[in-house]
Amino acid sequence: MINEKYEKMLGAKNIIRVLSEFATARGKEIGYDNVFDYSLGNPSVPPPQEFTDTMERLLKDRNPVELHGYSPTLGNPLFKEKIAQSLNERFGMSYTAGHIFPTTGAAGAIAHAVRAVTKPGDEIITFAPFFPEYVPYIEGAGCTLTVVPADRESFQINFDAFESMMNERVAAVLINTPNNPSGQMYSAETLTKLAGMLKDASVKYGKTVFLISDEPYREIVFDGVKAPYVSLFYPNTLSCYSFSKSLSLPGERIGYVAVNPECEKADVIVPMCGQISRGLGHNCPPSVIQIAVAETCMLTSDLSVYEKNMNLIYDKLTELGYSVIRPGGTFYIMPKAMEEDSVAFCEKAKKYDLILVPADGFGASGYFRMAYCIDTEKVIRSLDAFERFTREEYGTC
Amino acid sequence: MINEKYEKMLGAKNIIRVLSEFATARGKEIGYDNVFDYSLGNPSVPPPQEFTDTMERLLKDRNPVELHGYSPTLGNPLFKEKIAQSLNERFGMSYTAGHIFPTTGAAGAIAHAVRAVTKPGDEIITFAPFFPEYVPYIEGAGCTLTVVPADRESFQINFDAFESMMNERVAAVLINTPNNPSGQMYSAETLTKLAGMLKDASVKYGKTVFLISDEPYREIVFDGVKAPYVSLFYPNTLSCYSFSKSLSLPGERIGYVAVNPECEKADVIVPMCGQISRGLGHNCPPSVIQIAVAETCMLTSDLSVYEKNMNLIYDKLTELGYSVIRPGGTFYIMPKAMEEDSVAFCEKAKKYDLILVPADGFGASGYFRMAYCIDTEKVIRSLDAFERFTREEYGTC
Repeated sequence: MINEKYEKMLGAKNIIRVLSEFATARGKEIGYDNVFDYSLGNPSVPPPQEFTDTMERLLKDRNPVELHGYSPTLGNPLFKEKIAQSLNERFGMSYTAGHIFPTTGAAGAIAHAVRAVTKPGDEIITFAPFFPEYVPYIEGAGCTLTVVPADRESFQINFDAFESMMNERVAAVLINTPNNPSGQMYSAETLTKLAGMLKDASVKYGKTVFLISDEPYREIVFDGVKAPYVSLFYPNTLSCYSFSKSLSLPGERIGYVAVNPECEKADVIVPMCGQISRGLGHNCPPSVIQIAVAETCMLTSDLSVYEKNMNLIYDKLTELGYSVIRPGGTFYIMPKAMEEDSVAFCEKAKKYDLILVPADGFGASGYFRMAYCIDTEKVIRSLDAFERFTREEYGTC
Repeated sequence: MINEKYEKMLGAKNIIRVLSEFATARGKEIGYDNVFDYSLGNPSVPPPQEFTDTMERLLKDRNPVELHGYSPTLGNPLFKEKIAQSLNERFGMSYTAGHIFPTTGAAGAIAHAVRAVTKPGDEIITFAPFFPEYVPYIEGAGCTLTVVPADRESFQINFDAFESMMNERVAAVLINTPNNPSGQMYSAETLTKLAGMLKDASVKYGKTVFLISDEPYREIVFDGVKAPYVSLFYPNTLSCYSFSKSLSLPGERIGYVAVNPECEKADVIVPMCGQISRGLGHNCPPSVIQIAVAETCMLTSDLSVYEKNMNLIYDKLTELGYSVIRPGGTFYIMPKAMEEDSVAFCEKAKKYDLILVPADGFGASGYFRMAYCIDTEKVIRSLDAFERFTREEYGTC
């Protein structure tokens, strides 16, 4: 018999995919240029030219048997060393190569990090709004995910709710800053308070409560500020990173887990990840991509378009009367819908060829998410549609 | 607390890795050219030039945002179509793209196939000699692996033992032909008999018993014959493939599951694999590699060196009095050791700078494995060492 659990999962439609497919179908009718598709978080800027140049050079100059050969179980040594060096220089950490485990993107990183610091049956806490894929990620490790309701004033952390939900079954807390879907960046104050509570909980329950920090948007921050580096605030932190957004390589599946050198059993966790891989059927990210990223990990794509798009959208939505907190990073914004039922709101928007995603699945009902990783020219054209939509459907402005 | 299970796994040494590290260390003393390292199954021939040319062309000509963008959840459509077409042409199958699920090598393929057709607690049967990584692969899915003892006459399948071990808990049978470590290819007769027994068991227990066929060595076959295509013998077959060996791309993590179109629920299994990926933290193999392999999947590296090496080793070992069944494929050979304790045998061989792997971990105690994916020139030089080793330690020939 085939596995019933996975068969049943086929019935549940992923609303982002449904909307994205609608956008594609509508695009075939009226031209995709005329569909304002804010559904998918797919980078719209190319990788840095240096990445492409490096790939071409590797293919030309390197012995192909070595270039495409198996990575060592714990990853390419040069990749690990360069990542450690880059994090140390930028954030004042003291990682060595032994603290870095290369993974197939942030999804792979979280899959390993969770299994390293939990056992089946444990509870993991995250904070709304949150990336809905956390549910299968956590359940795949045999754990349960508890979602702390959002602080709707700021989309930082609702500490009162967190405190009341913390319990001895919790093995780890999972955060995502800058945040998908809200675009908010946790402040140093938020992270300091969180670290304090995790330290207290560790003492109270007589065990380390780990922090798993999912930070693929770390390099996409606005207004010239730097995102606070989470691991600096709490030693028992496993940072999960992906080059999907910063180097625009989502399809190449490259990221890492970085274990804070002060973390409990810091020297054991990366070798454990190598063991975890065996049960998951992973074996390191692609070799040629590890080598190319080792040489370009200090760079980013030209990410300025995302800030430009954010400002255009934020200004227009504010002008139109939307309640929205200005994003500090990512390529998402999460305004409040003009009616309580954000699903109905997004459905009405489709008439104006605006593809918006209700944020209910992200733990923020009444809000919607826009992924503005699209051409600025298209963003500008979409603003008129937004104005018509808002005026005709809700009569404001 | 960190996960104790994975921490404990760190204590267990992998004998292949230990021997490979010994070979590297010894190489630093006397030059690696003088170490006859038969430990690791790492391809020694480059990928076809067409693969490298295709990669370079893609990097030059394609829009990099598309080239490196997310694959669809169920894989790149062109890759799936080309694989289906290639299998249909070569083996007379009737796959469509919908029956192909791209994976990160055969490890990823088995991880998905096992979860698709079992539930935790189920039993999976395999046949000695077998690839020891099957243990973590199967246990990672929450199942147990039962190993049917080897047929030491032929290293085909020990059907009597299989029949006595078959039971209602068995959800699937996992085979590997051509076989690592024995180099033997299951004959059409073996596969016909196996299929018959699986059909009978399915009727007897009132449920489909699936066949998971791990076939990364399918294209490395000798004497101009073709390996029988397993899926032709039994409809409920999931074929797990990797391009690690045939295209010499082990580090790039590219392979697939091919679901027989006549398999129970054939149309559902690939979409289920997409759901399984979410819990494992996979998301398709690397995008640029999928596209490049789509264009080169009909090709192979120049694999002739493996047959040349096999003949040299087989002839010499036979001459030296070893009992050995001539391999039909792969780049492995598994002779009987000159003493019962094959660990002691391989330990003695190290004195002659011959790095041989005891086959105990593969379920064939008393035998040893040689991975002869090394330069022919080195194979030739190793034969003298083999002769000295055998004469001086065992006095034969």
